[in-house]
Amino acid sequence: MPLRLAASDPDFEARFSDMLAAKREVSEDVDRTVADILDDVRRRGDAAVIDYSQKFDRIDLEKLGMRVSEQEIAAAKGSCDAETLKALELARDRIEAHHRRQKPADETYRDPIGVELGHRWTPLDSVGLYVPGGTAAYPSSVLMNAVPAKVAGVGRLAMVVPSPGGELAPLVLAAAELAGVDEVFRIGGAQAIGALAYGTETIRPVAKIVGPGNAYVAAAKRRVFGTVGIDMIAGPSEVLVVADGTANPDWIAADLLAQAEHDVSAQSILITDDASLADAVEAAVERQLTTLPRKDVAGASWRDYGAVIVVAAIDDAVPLANRIAAEHLEIIGADEDRLALAIRHAGAIFLGGHTPEAIGDYVGGSNHVLPTARTARFASGLGVLDFVKRTSILRCGPEQLKAIGPAAIALGEAEGLAAHARSVAIRMNPGG
Amino acid sequence: MPLRLAASDPDFEARFSDMLAAKREVSEDVDRTVADILDDVRRRGDAAVIDYSQKFDRIDLEKLGMRVSEQEIAAAKGSCDAETLKALELARDRIEAHHRRQKPADETYRDPIGVELGHRWTPLDSVGLYVPGGTAAYPSSVLMNAVPAKVAGVGRLAMVVPSPGGELAPLVLAAAELAGVDEVFRIGGAQAIGALAYGTETIRPVAKIVGPGNAYVAAAKRRVFGTVGIDMIAGPSEVLVVADGTANPDWIAADLLAQAEHDVSAQSILITDDASLADAVEAAVERQLTTLPRKDVAGASWRDYGAVIVVAAIDDAVPLANRIAAEHLEIIGADEDRLALAIRHAGAIFLGGHTPEAIGDYVGGSNHVLPTARTARFASGLGVLDFVKRTSILRCGPEQLKAIGPAAIALGEAEGLAAHARSVAIRMNPGG
Repeated sequence: MPLRLAASDPDFEARFSDMLAAKREVSEDVDRTVADILDDVRRRGDAAVIDYSQKFDRIDLEKLGMRVSEQEIAAAKGSCDAETLKALELARDRIEAHHRRQKPADETYRDPIGVELGHRWTPLDSVGLYVPGGTAAYPSSVLMNAVPAKVAGVGRLAMVVPSPGGELAPLVLAAAELAGVDEVFRIGGAQAIGALAYGTETIRPVAKIVGPGNAYVAAAKRRVFGTVGIDMIAGPSEVLVVADGTANPDWIAADLLAQAEHDVSAQSILITDDASLADAVEAAVERQLTTLPRKDVAGASWRDYGAVIVVAAIDDAVPLANRIAAEHLEIIGADEDRLALAIRHAGAIFLGGHTPEAIGDYVGGSNHVLPTARTARFASGLGVLDFVKRTSILRCGPEQLKAIGPAAIALGEAEGLAAHARSVAIRMNPGG
Repeated sequence: MPLRLAASDPDFEARFSDMLAAKREVSEDVDRTVADILDDVRRRGDAAVIDYSQKFDRIDLEKLGMRVSEQEIAAAKGSCDAETLKALELARDRIEAHHRRQKPADETYRDPIGVELGHRWTPLDSVGLYVPGGTAAYPSSVLMNAVPAKVAGVGRLAMVVPSPGGELAPLVLAAAELAGVDEVFRIGGAQAIGALAYGTETIRPVAKIVGPGNAYVAAAKRRVFGTVGIDMIAGPSEVLVVADGTANPDWIAADLLAQAEHDVSAQSILITDDASLADAVEAAVERQLTTLPRKDVAGASWRDYGAVIVVAAIDDAVPLANRIAAEHLEIIGADEDRLALAIRHAGAIFLGGHTPEAIGDYVGGSNHVLPTARTARFASGLGVLDFVKRTSILRCGPEQLKAIGPAAIALGEAEGLAAHARSVAIRMNPGG
């Protein structure tokens, strides 16, 4: 049974806090193993990557080659269902169109005393994209990570995807081709992160690594952070549906289960001001579960982490939603716009009954790589800004230096940095 | 003696690559210690923070109180030199004016088929600011970290600063007050990072932690990343000066030494197309060193990591500068604008002879927290964007769902996520 809470319960605050604090994933301590693998890849390059791939993925990269050839990619794409490829293309085009609007503008201006200030954005030279193998190899995720990088102008996009037992998902390769990925390597795990961060004989190092992965991949990304940039560390996914009594309980149930089918540690929550809607949604979930192929996964997620919360008035959902800081937030009801404006913390908001989260997962155009596990309190979804960086620009002339130089000298001296002060003073005193 | 290279040397590429690869800091392996301290703070809260402060900073927080009182801050400010305070105020005002222009805009639009897409930026609720103690407690750094957070609209800014032996730098407290810091705690090290990330009885947890620190602080930030957001992990600082023969060698020498005086692992590099300028700068550095209070530090940095590189033509400096990806890049000479436009990787560019880096460190208005150690390849300087996050917004109506829903269904099915497909299909088929 999912958690059922009413805001009027005397122990509501304690139980709601417990729900927020509950860890949905066992954090394996893989740090030592990962450190050793990274060191080994740094020292031995390709040879280490080949050894770990033999050991963990049971494949012989010396025979197969580390890089997936253009012929293999073309063959994989050729084997895909035509309708699915068309859907992938639509998704690619819509993601591209939306992300083009995210490109930030350069700026230069003079302030009132004539100091020139500005900044310029430049794309990263190269980015590594980690794609999980096996059942979690989602072509939509390849698009969501690769397209913004290409829109940003990243010159070289190198994808790694483990190939356990030699298998590679054809749709993942097709998505890579559609998104403009430049290089694909059949490697995964901490060894792939090491290869991208440090480079090997076959793989040139990248400037940043993005993409989700298991505990080993996450630990490896954390360790190479600084040598390269990384995106967020993705945790288990969640959806929060805020709905009033006008909402369709079957639709909400379907959305809760779409989240739950991802993973046993996914979380689906409904907050409503209508207890009978809550009842109807719970019943619809049970009904829909019976016919779901992934009913074991979805059922476990719903049973262990699902929650239905009844509040006295729909506005009472807002502070709870802000505390949950959900990755995905659906708002359905008469007041959806007003409620949405009051939300401070959410990865993405899906407004109205005709915007199931799955639309955003695939073809809405916005990014589905979003901050999980309450990290929407401080993080944003993936976008073009993750693939560019800003260089600030400053210029003074003699007049400006005269105006603000004395303050710089005072601060340099106060901080005990006499050479800082001198580097300003020497220019203000033509005697040198 | 600093490294002296000419691009025409037969071994130039090898020696330049070695310079880029050289580690300027010994990375201490403090991970185990830091993990233990963090665990302890998470479990025991205030009591653990009090114990570690006793042990590492030799202070009794039970007697002194963890929080620095408003009276203490006012008294500290009262003890500061009036001219220095005025300089700090000028710096604060200029940083604030510049960063106000960085506030990103919200957006909503409808695409050609009527899907509503958009995003909204929200400030973080709370931010922790780490300020190093001892000689590295710079009031200018307090301003550079705190002012953008306040401009972004961060509600609660909590500063931690270690107080070894009970000492706190009055100017640091004055800067905190001028910048609008809401809470100041006299704690440091990994225990302070733990307190900010997990919260204790006295310190409420924050959403993100920014600010530089020693190896323990850096390791702790790396570990709490995910629980809270963090900024970059700062390494040793560097300046690259690109100058032609028109530049003043005394001014350049002063700038190289301003960088070198920070730290023995700081790095100062000159690239020029004029060998006689190179000679004159080297001579001026030696001359200026003799009268510098921090000549031991600056001399060691210049001797161990300084470099002077002579290229055949000034344009040849550009690819080298892009490979160095310097935190600070000064460009001085006839072609400064053209050269600046060709730079892809730099934290900040200082244009022309009258813009010493020290102006940017203090009063230029742009941020002096910049990506060090070649991380300008993927990272930007600190700014307002570091203190806000974006929520994406998506809305379809029935017509839009009809248009793009089938593609979402196809992709859901292709990915084996039947509940995703159903959550779309159920809305397209009014029969449910």
